[in-house]
Amino acid sequence: MSIKLDDLQCSNLRIYQDTERFCFGMDAVLLSGFAKAAEGAQVLDLGTGTGIIPLLLSAKTKAAHFCALEIQEESADLARRSVTLNHLDDKIDIITGDIREAGEIFPAASFDVITSNPPYMTGGHGLLNPDSAKAIARHEIMCTFEDLACSVEKLLRPGGSFYLVHRPFRLAEILYVLKNHHLEPKRMRLVYPYIDREPNMVLLACVRGGKERMQIDPPLIVYRSPGVYTEEIRTIYGY
Amino acid sequence: MSIKLDDLQCSNLRIYQDTERFCFGMDAVLLSGFAKAAEGAQVLDLGTGTGIIPLLLSAKTKAAHFCALEIQEESADLARRSVTLNHLDDKIDIITGDIREAGEIFPAASFDVITSNPPYMTGGHGLLNPDSAKAIARHEIMCTFEDLACSVEKLLRPGGSFYLVHRPFRLAEILYVLKNHHLEPKRMRLVYPYIDREPNMVLLACVRGGKERMQIDPPLIVYRSPGVYTEEIRTIYGY
Repeated sequence: MSIKLDDLQCSNLRIYQDTERFCFGMDAVLLSGFAKAAEGAQVLDLGTGTGIIPLLLSAKTKAAHFCALEIQEESADLARRSVTLNHLDDKIDIITGDIREAGEIFPAASFDVITSNPPYMTGGHGLLNPDSAKAIARHEIMCTFEDLACSVEKLLRPGGSFYLVHRPFRLAEILYVLKNHHLEPKRMRLVYPYIDREPNMVLLACVRGGKERMQIDPPLIVYRSPGVYTEEIRTIYGY
Repeated sequence: MSIKLDDLQCSNLRIYQDTERFCFGMDAVLLSGFAKAAEGAQVLDLGTGTGIIPLLLSAKTKAAHFCALEIQEESADLARRSVTLNHLDDKIDIITGDIREAGEIFPAASFDVITSNPPYMTGGHGLLNPDSAKAIARHEIMCTFEDLACSVEKLLRPGGSFYLVHRPFRLAEILYVLKNHHLEPKRMRLVYPYIDREPNMVLLACVRGGKERMQIDPPLIVYRSPGVYTEEIRTIYGY
């Protein structure tokens, strides 16, 4: 283990991470900027890793409480340490557990908002070390997108929102699975590294039982020039 | 009727249109720039209107032959007049007929490429004049997106490509219907009027029986400033 403590540039929040394991990326930060939670909302983060999303959302929203599920004990432990360090024990519960069993861990239809930054890559075939922490965070080894959608459908109240970030190359499949689980895509934003490049992330907001009709936001461009963030990215990061 | 003859700014092509009926828009021009047809390809355009897409593709590609189906006799007549005016009678056949019956009009799996710029709006409820030419071109009065996908699945050869343009607010539904008809979305491009605005068109390329994995292109921005097209739009239009 090689633990570091990072400043999140947001309400003095700090987070523990293990540099030898999976560290959060821009994906989680952008998802925290994209997701909304009303005052008093009950929020669940599925596959929370070191807890980056509930930590940021606890500062950015007036949600009442956060549950966060993580299958890897070491990551869940770091998330708990960060929660305590930030004096958020009353607001954020980190639970060690499997997304596939989330429907049994939490009461049905008990959340107003669910967020997830799931593994992006299908399967784990050909991986040198499929049991490694990074492989589990990046590849659908422990849980497929279908498993995730299935649990979200059970745990979200009707009319509740599901926010996720994923890779554009899986967009058609993801929208298909979401619709099959009555999680209607209502808003989408593509993240382009540069204005003239292909997008490398897609942010999605779905409503359980929502009507068919979605909004696509203006493009979110990350870099103005190499190494220089756009104004919007600087705002999201709190620089 | 109020017929005008427009220069298409492409290989000296000209097109007849009736200013009192539906005239082609940027949608059809962008679709013609987005679609690809290999040398010798058999191409079908479903809901061709006044034939804008086969006219442009006959100049932009080396496809062998185009069939184009249109349900409105007056539009089909104008399309035939344009085909003759441009000396393309050997290359483009305009057929008057219904997209819902296209599977009986043409032999199964007989096209390498199918294109369509279908009606965007669902239903025709509340329309003052649902029988008008413009209403039929814009609203799903004669044919739903499901009907269209059903005919495309029958007429496209396995591995053949379906190119379409539609409205972003229907994206999730459209991708869902396409996948249900084994028309796998493989490439997508969003058209944004300005860089900081929501997109108002989506261009899609699907492959019949293709594998799940898609590419999303860089954003296509229409205007650099009010009234001033971007370089890319000028190139597509041939200015």
